This record gives sequence, C-alpha cells and structure tokens, in this order.
Amino acid sequence: MNISFIGLGNMGLPMALNLVKEGFSVSGFDLSPTQLSTFAASGGRACSSVGDAIEGAEVVISMLPASKHVEELYLGVDGLLAKMPSKALLIDCSTIAPQSSRRVADLAAAKGFEMIDAPVSGGTGGAQTGTLTFMVGGTDAALERARPYLEAMGKNIFHAGAVGAGQTVKVCNNMLLGILMIGTSEALRLGMANGMQPKVLSEVMAKSSGRNWVLDVYNPCPGTMENVPSSRNYAGGFGVDLMLKDLGLAVENGLSVGASTPLGSLARNLYDIHSKAGNGNQDFSSIFNLLAKHVSGDV
Amino acid sequence: MNISFIGLGNMGLPMALNLVKEGFSVSGFDLSPTQLSTFAASGGRACSSVGDAIEGAEVVISMLPASKHVEELYLGVDGLLAKMPSKALLIDCSTIAPQSSRRVADLAAAKGFEMIDAPVSGGTGGAQTGTLTFMVGGTDAALERARPYLEAMGKNIFHAGAVGAGQTVKVCNNMLLGILMIGTSEALRLGMANGMQPKVLSEVMAKSSGRNWVLDVYNPCPGTMENVPSSRNYAGGFGVDLMLKDLGLAVENGLSVGASTPLGSLARNLYDIHSKAGNGNQDFSSIFNLLAKHVSGDV
Amino acid sequence: MNISFIGLGNMGLPMALNLVKEGFSVSGFDLSPTQLSTFAASGGRACSSVGDAIEGAEVVISMLPASKHVEELYLGVDGLLAKMPSKALLIDCSTIAPQSSRRVADLAAAKGFEMIDAPVSGGTGGAQTGTLTFMVGGTDAALERARPYLEAMGKNIFHAGAVGAGQTVKVCNNMLLGILMIGTSEALRLGMANGMQPKVLSEVMAKSSGRNWVLDVYNPCPGTMENVPSSRNYAGGFGVDLMLKDLGLAVENGLSVGASTPLGSLARNLYDIHSKAGNGNQDFSSIFNLLAKHVSGDV
Amino acid sequence: MNISFIGLGNMGLPMALNLVKEGFSVSGFDLSPTQLSTFAASGGRACSSVGDAIEGAEVVISMLPASKHVEELYLGVDGLLAKMPSKALLIDCSTIAPQSSRRVADLAAAKGFEMIDAPVSGGTGGAQTGTLTFMVGGTDAALERARPYLEAMGKNIFHAGAVGAGQTVKVCNNMLLGILMIGTSEALRLGMANGMQPKVLSEVMAKSSGRNWVLDVYNPCPGTMENVPSSRNYAGGFGVDLMLKDLGLAVENGLSVGASTPLGSLARNLYDIHSKAGNGNQDFSSIFNLLAKHVSGDV
Repeated sequence: MNISFIGLGNMGLPMALNLVKEGFSVSGFDLSPTQLSTFAASGGRACSSVGDAIEGAEVVISMLPASKHVEELYLGVDGLLAKMPSKALLIDCSTIAPQSSRRVADLAAAKGFEMIDAPVSGGTGGAQTGTLTFMVGGTDAALERARPYLEAMGKNIFHAGAVGAGQTVKVCNNMLLGILMIGTSEALRLGMANGMQPKVLSEVMAKSSGRNWVLDVYNPCPGTMENVPSSRNYAGGFGVDLMLKDLGLAVENGLSVGASTPLGSLARNLYDIHSKAGNGNQDFSSIFNLLAKHVSGDV
Repeated sequence: MNISFIGLGNMGLPMALNLVKEGFSVSGFDLSPTQLSTFAASGGRACSSVGDAIEGAEVVISMLPASKHVEELYLGVDGLLAKMPSKALLIDCSTIAPQSSRRVADLAAAKGFEMIDAPVSGGTGGAQTGTLTFMVGGTDAALERARPYLEAMGKNIFHAGAVGAGQTVKVCNNMLLGILMIGTSEALRLGMANGMQPKVLSEVMAKSSGRNWVLDVYNPCPGTMENVPSSRNYAGGFGVDLMLKDLGLAVENGLSVGASTPLGSLARNLYDIHSKAGNGNQDFSSIFNLLAKHVSGDV
Repeated sequence: MNISFIGLGNMGLPMALNLVKEGFSVSGFDLSPTQLSTFAASGGRACSSVGDAIEGAEVVISMLPASKHVEELYLGVDGLLAKMPSKALLIDCSTIAPQSSRRVADLAAAKGFEMIDAPVSGGTGGAQTGTLTFMVGGTDAALERARPYLEAMGKNIFHAGAVGAGQTVKVCNNMLLGILMIGTSEALRLGMANGMQPKVLSEVMAKSSGRNWVLDVYNPCPGTMENVPSSRNYAGGFGVDLMLKDLGLAVENGLSVGASTPLGSLARNLYDIHSKAGNGNQDFSSIFNLLAKHVSGDV
Repeated sequence: MNISFIGLGNMGLPMALNLVKEGFSVSGFDLSPTQLSTFAASGGRACSSVGDAIEGAEVVISMLPASKHVEELYLGVDGLLAKMPSKALLIDCSTIAPQSSRRVADLAAAKGFEMIDAPVSGGTGGAQTGTLTFMVGGTDAALERARPYLEAMGKNIFHAGAVGAGQTVKVCNNMLLGILMIGTSEALRLGMANGMQPKVLSEVMAKSSGRNWVLDVYNPCPGTMENVPSSRNYAGGFGVDLMLKDLGLAVENGLSVGASTPLGSLARNLYDIHSKAGNGNQDFSSIFNLLAKHVSGDV
C-alpha cells in the first residue's frame, strides 16, 4: 500500500516513521530539507514536492500547522482534489477549525473521495512511541479503511461522529483543558495564599468534586508531583503557544457556530497575556506563574 | 458524653440525629420551633436557648449559615468563649470564610479552648445517611478528640492543616467545582452547536485531558446521564444559590489574602446572573441553560 | 455620474435615496422585491441583478450584511473585479472584518481599481437624514474621488488611514462602546444596590473620571434621561444583535492579528447570553437588565 | 475653630496644611514622625497620640488607608465615639468600603454625632493645590457644617446622598474608570495590531461613541498625548496598587449588596496580575503594557 505523508514536522515525522516501521511504503514531503533527510535516512521516500509525493498514492495523510495550509493542500488550484484519483483515501491529522475541516471534507465528498479528520492528542512523545490518541470524524466505512494506518501510529481511536467531529472533539476537549489548568492553578494559589500546603490541598481536591485531569496527572505547582513539566521548570510538555492556538480555534469556532464561551474566551486571553510576557515556549502549566504571589507588600 | 448542637437546619438536624442514634446525649438549639420539635421527637433534647443547650456540654458542634452567625455564637457578648469552661471541645461544621474561621479559632485558643473547623461536603443526602466528608483544620490532638463525633456523622475525614485549613480546602474545592461545571457546559454547548451528540462528546472527553468530576458523575446536559439533576429538570442536588454563596466566599477570601481568581470571579458573576434570572433554587448544573442555543435566527 | 448601489436594506435604501435626491443617477439592486420597489418609487433605477446594476457604472457603492457577502460580490467568479472596467471607483460601506476588507481592497488594487472602505455610524436615523459618519480607509486620492457621494449621505468624514483602516476604527470603537455600556451598567447597578439614586450617581460620574459617551447621551437606566431607548422600554436604537455582530468582528479580528481583548471578549459573551435569553431585538442598552436586582431573597 | 486631623500621609498632610493656611487651628496625628515634623514645621500642632489630637476638637477629619483603620479610630475601645463629646462634627475623607462607612456613621448617629463620608478625587496634586473633589454622603445639615473645611481643601463638592453615598459614588466611579482604562487600552492595541496610528485612532474614537475620560485626558499609549503618565514612562499619576485597592472595594461591596460586576471583577484580576508582575507603583495606565504585542513570532 502506497502512502503519501504531507508535513514531516515535530509530530508528522515520527508518525510517518512509525508507518515505515510497520512496512508501509511512505512517500513524504516537507518544506524543511532537514526533516526530509531525517525521513530519508530512516527508510522513507523523501519527495521534492507535493506533486511528487502523491504520485501513485492510495492513501494521503496530512499533518499541517493550520486551517489555511490544509485548505491550500486540498483545495488549491494544484491541490489534491484536483490532481488525485478519487479512489484515494484522505486522512487529515492536523488540528484545524472544525468549520474548515467540514468544508474540505464536503468538497472532497462532492468529488467522490472518502475523507476523515483525525486530529491527535499525546504530543511528540506519543507520536514517537506510536501511542497517540486519534479523534475521528467521518463515516464508519472511511474509518475502517483508515484503521490500519491509524493503528500503526496510535493506541486509542475514538469515532466522534460525522466529518468535522474529530476536530470538534479536539477543540472542545482542549478548551476545557485550558480552563481546567487555569481553574486548578487559581484554586492552588488561593489555598497557598491562606497558608496551605499545595500537595495536601491537591490530594484532598483530587478526592473531592474538584477532581480533574490536571490534579490527577499534570499538577502545575512545583514540588507536588514528579515527572511533570512543573517539576522541571516547565520545560517540555505542551507549550503555551500550542494551547493558545487551540483556544483560538475554540473561540473562532464558537463565533462561527454561535456558541457562548465566557470561560474559554477568558482562558484564551490569559494565555495570550502569558505568552506576550515571553513564556510562549514554556509548558502550558506555567500559567500557574501568572497568578504568582505579590513580591512586594500589599497596599 | 454531653454534646451541644447549635443549628438544626436542613444539614444540622440529620447530623445531630445521627449522633443521637450513636447513643450520644445531644442538646440542640435552633431558631425554628418546627426543627426543634422534629429533633425532640427523634430523641434529642430540645433547648429554648443557646445558653440552655450548652449547659454542661463537653463538646459543642455548630452548623450555621454564614460567618456572622458563627462569630456571634462564639465571640458575642454572651458568646460561648465567654460562657463556657475552656475544657469543652469546639467543632464548627459551618461553611464560612477562612479568615473568619481563623479569627474565631485564634480567640478560642487564646482562652484555652481546642477548636477545629470541619466544613462538610455531601449535601443533605450525605447528612441523612451519615456519609458526609469532613475537611478539618486544627491540631492533630483536637482532631483525635473530635473523631468519634465526626465518624458518627460522616465517612471520610481529611485533615487539611492548621485551623482554617478545613474552610480553605472547601472554598478552594468549591470554587474549582464552579469552574469545572461552567467549563464543561461550555465545551458541551460548543460541541452541540457543531452538531455533535453530547453523550459521545462527554464520553470521549471523560477519557481525555478534559476529564473531570462533572463529566464523571454530574453531567449538566439532559439525556447524557441517569440519576443526576439534569435528568430531572435540575431539581434537587446542590442549588445555584449555594454555589453562589461558596463562590462569594472564594472571591472575598481571595481579596483578603491577595490572590488572583480571574476564572473564579467570572464564574461567580455568571452564577449571579443566572440566579437573578430566577434560577436560584435549581441545581447548579442548570448553568448549562445560561449558554442555551439561540432561539431565533442569527444576524 | 452613474452610481451603482448594491444592498438596499434598512441602511442602504435611505442612503441610496439621498444620492438620488442630490441628482445622481443611481441603479440599485437588492434581493428583496419590496425594497427594490420602494427604491423605484422614489426615483431610483431598480435592477434585477448585480450585473444589470453595474452596467455602465462609474462608481459602485456596496452596503451588505457580512464579510462573506462582500467577498462574493467583489471576488466571486462573476464578481465586480472580474466584470467591471478598472476605472470604476469602489466604495464599500458595509461593516465587515478588517482583514476581509484589506483582502478585497488589495485584490482590487492589483487589478487597477481604486477602492475605499467606508463603514458608517449613525444608524437608520442618520441614514435617513443624511447625517451619517463615515470612517474611511484608503488613499487620499480615492477618498477625494469618493467625497461628493459620501457628503450626499453623511455629515462627518474621518480619514482613518490606508485600506482597512475604516473597518479597523469601526471595530475598535464599537468594541469599546460595548465595554462602556456594560461597565456603566455595572457601576449604576452597584450604586443602586447601595441605595443611591441612579440619576444623581450618573451626574456625578459624568463630571468625574468615569465620564463616557454612555453617561453623556445614552444612559441605560430607565428614568435617568429622556429620548433614549431606556426611556421607551429599550425599543429602537442599536440592537443587541448588531452589537453582538460588531463584538464578534472585534474578537475575530483580534484572533487574526494577535491582540488581547479580555474585556471585549467578555462583553461579547455577555451580549451573547443576553441575546440567547430572547433580547436580540432590544436596544443594546438593555444589557442593563442582565444585571438586574435579585427578585427573591438572598441566601 | 479647633480641628483635629488624623492621618497625615501623602494625601492627609497637604490637606491639613491647607486648613492651616486658611487660619484654622489644626492638631494633627500620624504614626510617622517624619510626617508629623513636616506638619509642625508648617504651622500645625503635632500631637503624639490620637487622644492628644482630639482634645478640645470641634471638628475631626480622618484620612486613613482602609476600612479597618477607620473602624478602629471611631469604634475601638478607646475610639472617638467613646471619648469625644457628641457635639463634634466628624468628617471621614478616607476611601473605604461603603458598608463600613455606613456602619460607622450609623453608630455615630446613635450616639448623637453628625458625621459625613467625604472621599476625594484629584490625587496628591489636587491635595497640594487645594483643588480636590469631595463626594459627600450625609445630611444637608452636616454637609453645611462641613462646607467651610471642605472648601479650604477642595474645589468641587458633590452631595451624593445619605451617609455612605460618598463612598458609594467613589467606588462606582473608580470601578468604571478601571474598566474605561482597560477597555480603551484594548481598543488601541487592537487598532495598532491592524497597523493603525494610535493617535489617529484615539482622535476618531474621542469624537465617536467610544469617547470617554481616558481618551480625553489620560491616553495610556506613549506618544499620543503630552503631560500624562504614559508620556513619562508611567511615572507619577494614580498608581496600579491604588486602582487595585479601589477595584477590590468595588468587588467586596458588590458581594455585600448582591450586585453583579463581571467587567469590574475581571478588571480587578487584570490589575492584580499586572501588580504581581512588579508594576504596582507605576501609573494605572501602564495596564496598556499588559496587552503588549507579541515579541516573538506567532504560532
């Protein structure tokens, strides 16, 4: 089976290499020569253009930064929908706006293509170890066709609904995650300002109605948990600017479908302020520091 | 052992009766004659005044609505600190401001009393079945003295730290809960506005990084979960006005100790707006309706 | 001079008729037959298609609901840029996203057209009396060519900067207006909850550092000012859903250019909640009611 | 007429000295020996205790930092209400919580005192030049008795209503001012991110419905206006921590009287975050920098 993989960045490269390891023939393209040569050195076929990469492909997988890149790849004048035979299966793993994902998939369907949106969670670590989670939007039939490739790259596959539903789930989940992280940080800071030990407070809340993923596995307060970004000065993990991008997708999508997102919108602005202060590359749990204690005396 | 129980409301009455069931001698007081006679009918000693109720008591338990009532009971001119022998153990189960709790406990300590703050979670149901959770602030010694009485009324006892820590944990946890409820509601509404099934979306998020107590056991969207307030038109459960009170305590405490609570403050204002529209007695998950879909067409 | 006017809605129709009154020959198009016949009855030339309306036009003025309509009119397959001679002057009076406005104007310029964005303020009243304010983006030369037509429809013309600057000013100003309205409402509600007369409070703040356009001419509290929407049950004026649209443009634009808008985003969500409760057609000062006093007793 | 002045800080000292200049006999007290000796050097009578300062006073004026200081001064065991003859006129110029102000004034009235709350605006500049604005709560009679002293220290006197109304007006006005400052900063930043000149944008908005006190006299963007703090690196003016204090009073008061303040609460949290980053002593218009442009590239 010939697979074309478009976008060999920090996520795309290890994903494509996991397909190579499973014995698939993978033709890849990326704008970066460095990424391309790493890909070639590990057994991939490095191509000098999209056109070259999709030549003869039965499956196309894309992993690109934003809606505009995906729209250009599929819908552009020389885009895939115009150049490929419609029997090819299209799998977009990028995280983009649900409304954009639906638009591309609808135009693909009109030309006879089967297409799914399959954004991932699990980060670069999950991409390397092949343990990503895929949130899939599309028909049952399309998902079944795609399953062997997804299973080569990940561990969990959720079928969220029709086309666009994969993006919708990702956007909703990550907006909620952004809120959980700030809300948990506020609760910890409030307790600490009252003299409490953050570790004790975390443990009690994790067994009470404040329980959430952040308290369970990603505590933002240094010293409360090992092997999380807050224990290594907020290095690694999921960056502030990536959370900011996802919250931006959520707010933009909310405008597009007419939804109210008061906490989600405020979370985005707080991450924006945090990024503008120079923390864009830190892990997103560093928002804990935006709420730091006063250094000087109170008024 | 003679116990004095002050405040026989919806929570206090069943708590006091659980002590009676365990064989303790309980003298109770409340401003409501109805509550007092129900108490007497079930084996309690109904008293006509606080002074009468504390006569000869070795343990005092209070369960009152707000900081001012607690301060008056303990610190007033005819208050407990002035009238009782300091060998009595003082247990305040009310949910009040941490700064107020510390103030009372510090003055009690200055007079030689042992005192703990022990606010509860679990609602009227937990009070009746004796399965409340206590969050305790105070010394180890005081908690050990109090343990037999707390165990007669509840199931879990967390020792949160020094005096005031019980209130602090409760305030922090419930602020976080208010944020989780609105954040989860926003995520569900956003998904639904994109055409997703809320049940599917809930299940995927509950297995992802959006996981939290609300998705696990208290889904605010009707039709997603059985035996929760959203499945019975938001009747029963934990009322909007009770959540509003707790968020008010959190914001007030944040002002007092100099903590930032951007999401917590916004959550309080949204609950306030929801209550002002006439929904104060509904379960707090009804905030889901504040974000309802547009009834008419968009602009 | 032959003018083509596309979009004869509540704003466009009276604007076009003011051009007719000044002696210009105006060919108009709208999807609504009713609007078209009113236009014809007052001396305009009603056309059955855009193609018909732009036939021989030296100036095109558009007044459409949203970015997508403007993009379709100018950039579509049969759009103006494709069909008209480039010597025509293009004037877009719609309120749309600045980034969309710049896109259309840049493509127009690439084809040799002079184009300005000239969104208005002043509402339907200003449109009828020819007293609109225009906020113009474009070159000096293009504005001078457009001036006679703008002066036939309005009273004040601000040259805000290059193409897109008209939209930018409108979006920024109206986001600020939305904030002023809610902020002023909060201040009045807070004072009233303390027992103050809103009229006295308004007068003092209007002479202090809280002074703003809302206090000066558009007080949202009934009984404080005559001849404003709050004095007539919030009828007339500038509707909630129009403010919601403008705040949506501001938030969307902020995402597009990377700006933080914490208060603007919250204002949008509050107007969204207010609209979803069924108040979309009321004047935007009715947001005062979202902050109404509790009807029942406090907790 | 013997006046006692309690609190000779940055505001109180020049206010007291203006009374001295007008020929009144003023006995002053402050905890700071430096302030006391400056006071004595300019003709005041420096006292070593409150008790000494109020000896024989017919008028008491207080200018203290917070509610607790005012309550202690008037209501404490050795407080003024207990020690002074009730014919003395009491004037509190401190900015404190309206609910605290009403409490003190009500207890004063119960003992037969006439008392007004008379918080000021105008800053240290206005205090020195005797051009403060007083916002007064109290009876007509009490205000008339106080007028000669207020006129020695200020220029404008607003009678806002009954006791507490002076504080209420100040709290409402300053909450609104905090919102105006952030809202105007957001609008300017949004325009600048679109490439606009902030000066042009400011001028157009100042003539439109975005007009407000900040645009008129206190523009937060450097280079738009002379002789304002933003033109001198945010030195001088009204400090971030003072605005933070006033916004805290507004939020606390809102909790106390049951008012919704969504924008006011968010404004307080933004100022809190700004202060915690080390900007507490800058002018409050420096909040403009919290919304600064991204320094690095976007995602």
